[in-house]
Amino acid sequence: MPVKISPLAPKQIKKIKIIEGVSVSITHCGLKKNNKDDLALIKLDKPGNIIGAFTRSNTPGEPIIWNKSIIKHGKVSAILINSGNANVFNGKSGKLSLLRIVKYLSHKLCIPQKEVYIASTGVIGEPLNEKKIIKKIPFLIRNLKNDSESWFSAAKAIMTTDTYPKTHSEKIIGNENFVINGIAKGSGMIAPNMATMLAFIFTNFKIKKSLFPQFKEIVHRTFNSITIDGDTSTSDMVLLFSLNEKKENYKISNLKKFLQSLENLMNKLSELIVKDGEGASKFITINIRGSKNQRDAKKIGESIANSPLFKTAMAGSDANWGRVIMAIGKSEATIDPLKISLKFGRYFILKNGKEFISKNIKSIDKYLKNNEIEVTVDLGLGISDWKIRTCDFTNRYISINTDYRS
Amino acid sequence: MPVKISPLAPKQIKKIKIIEGVSVSITHCGLKKNNKDDLALIKLDKPGNIIGAFTRSNTPGEPIIWNKSIIKHGKVSAILINSGNANVFNGKSGKLSLLRIVKYLSHKLCIPQKEVYIASTGVIGEPLNEKKIIKKIPFLIRNLKNDSESWFSAAKAIMTTDTYPKTHSEKIIGNENFVINGIAKGSGMIAPNMATMLAFIFTNFKIKKSLFPQFKEIVHRTFNSITIDGDTSTSDMVLLFSLNEKKENYKISNLKKFLQSLENLMNKLSELIVKDGEGASKFITINIRGSKNQRDAKKIGESIANSPLFKTAMAGSDANWGRVIMAIGKSEATIDPLKISLKFGRYFILKNGKEFISKNIKSIDKYLKNNEIEVTVDLGLGISDWKIRTCDFTNRYISINTDYRS
Repeated sequence: MPVKISPLAPKQIKKIKIIEGVSVSITHCGLKKNNKDDLALIKLDKPGNIIGAFTRSNTPGEPIIWNKSIIKHGKVSAILINSGNANVFNGKSGKLSLLRIVKYLSHKLCIPQKEVYIASTGVIGEPLNEKKIIKKIPFLIRNLKNDSESWFSAAKAIMTTDTYPKTHSEKIIGNENFVINGIAKGSGMIAPNMATMLAFIFTNFKIKKSLFPQFKEIVHRTFNSITIDGDTSTSDMVLLFSLNEKKENYKISNLKKFLQSLENLMNKLSELIVKDGEGASKFITINIRGSKNQRDAKKIGESIANSPLFKTAMAGSDANWGRVIMAIGKSEATIDPLKISLKFGRYFILKNGKEFISKNIKSIDKYLKNNEIEVTVDLGLGISDWKIRTCDFTNRYISINTDYRS
Repeated sequence: MPVKISPLAPKQIKKIKIIEGVSVSITHCGLKKNNKDDLALIKLDKPGNIIGAFTRSNTPGEPIIWNKSIIKHGKVSAILINSGNANVFNGKSGKLSLLRIVKYLSHKLCIPQKEVYIASTGVIGEPLNEKKIIKKIPFLIRNLKNDSESWFSAAKAIMTTDTYPKTHSEKIIGNENFVINGIAKGSGMIAPNMATMLAFIFTNFKIKKSLFPQFKEIVHRTFNSITIDGDTSTSDMVLLFSLNEKKENYKISNLKKFLQSLENLMNKLSELIVKDGEGASKFITINIRGSKNQRDAKKIGESIANSPLFKTAMAGSDANWGRVIMAIGKSEATIDPLKISLKFGRYFILKNGKEFISKNIKSIDKYLKNNEIEVTVDLGLGISDWKIRTCDFTNRYISINTDYRS
């Protein structure tokens, strides 16, 4: 299957900003074919702070297990990311491979092991030949650079079935010295055997561990509120790296602005992932409003976004609102059918569960031909809302996933 | 899109048996196009007993709401089933339509309203013109027949996107006088806007209300353990009708045999539904063994069976076992990765979470070209098991569901 760039890919990619104190290097170590870069090292000049969120899978990869075990220390000096092999379900040998890499990297960089983070994405259940990686570490260390191109190359090196690299930079409003950089990957949950949502975010704004609850909430609203196919990877992670340099920046007002910029960045990266959803031809935002609580709103949004029937209707530009109702019904959230309103874009199809606006069907069918679609459900029960973003479900998704090995 | 009979359809359909005391009639009332039958009446000579299970959707159709309200009486004299319109989400007018039908039928048959059951399947959110149905009731009553062909025609009349009618008869071993007949429909959750799993089972074996727990358990193991696309209809129901004629049949030994035959029948109907899954090219049985409890086993089985990645791998005859591991991981059930064994057919790919049997990959790829596939996961934790049946996910599913209205 020829690789075709997603029709939803951004027309132009903005240059990623430089952050003093962070450098990047990339290379090909042989886990991916065709000499493509498959290994990236990102290094902090001085130990920084780190917080992170990890997959809830019960069959997590070795990097997840390792990172979770060290993150309580809260310090970080480097992360090594490889694509082409996820190091999942490789038994003891997988654990040993990871430890050898950590040990070697820690030794060569003269940093404690508990400051070395690892991420892997690619095939699962295939033994990882860690020698390929270790052999390239001296080269990576010698070639660390702090330029925009290296960031971009790192975003490319961590791709699996992604059709474009995902990067974004934010400055903090009114505090132009502070930068947040993010790179991410993900494109449906496959690649070759299974894919992964990885996001690495770097900032020279100093964060403390106590920021974790706010961070988790933002992750919940952004990365945890997108879905391509409802499948959960063994290797998902979002890590936030903060340099330990600037002082006096931890004022309440700054922190608020920082969190806002962080959310903007995570939002953007999440969107870039959905827009590279396998076979995606449409980017769909599902707004749930008027819910009793956010939990219910999220449940309903996810139920719609994961319904193959809804997703195929969107692919076919079909105002098949019954499938939205079906998905609301199966979500197990609290609803009152007689209070539900539903609209596509600005066109109502249903008001208060009773009034069916049939005259809008044609406009909706037309609206659904756009490649960015908004579906809004108002439950009429309360004041909570939630937003879920997803893509449609096309023949190409099936082809990518059935034909992969053939 | 031309209707093509599922490649998994049974080669021949066995004649459905006659049950003295139950008669059937069918007609075209105008809810379906092309003069196809879309209305079936099934009538018991004397009031019988009834138990049933209904969709858990929070946006249920009017027939579900009605049937649930009367089933506590436990008596039944007739059921009227229409296809072409599901009478879901039609507000007050939908409720009134249903009541008018019930009233008229009750009047014409001289039976209490609480013994009149209704089932509807088809488009949702489209007002139901109940006059079309009511007009045909006298004709239906005049033409009630007790023959095999009428049962078969009734199974056809309740079809929506089904590609073949689903019927099955069982006799109770050693009690040849007792018959169980079932007709069912279902084929993915669509048709035209949304579909439904309907099953109506009739027997001259006398059942009591107290059988409900056993009935629910069998439903749980059969109809509730199949999945086409993970979507839940607003109109699903399984009803068991029992004539009140035979006496002295309620001995413990007979009851056991009856329940066994009932399970055989429900099993067969469930299988027929999966084999008519939209776009299905393969029938897949997922066995979960060695679980701590049945709940976990069912969760894991469903997680695999609903994973688009697993289903597309099966469509592609791809021994992509990583996707099974991923689906186990995301199920939230208790597992120990180091104890999982996995096989396709009789070929192990993984033993005790450690031993990867790579030499079997070729045999598995070959095995997966069959149109009936078995996947077995042994969790190595306990003695509970569960079986889930599903179909693969093909381009045809997408085409059926995206192109429907175009």
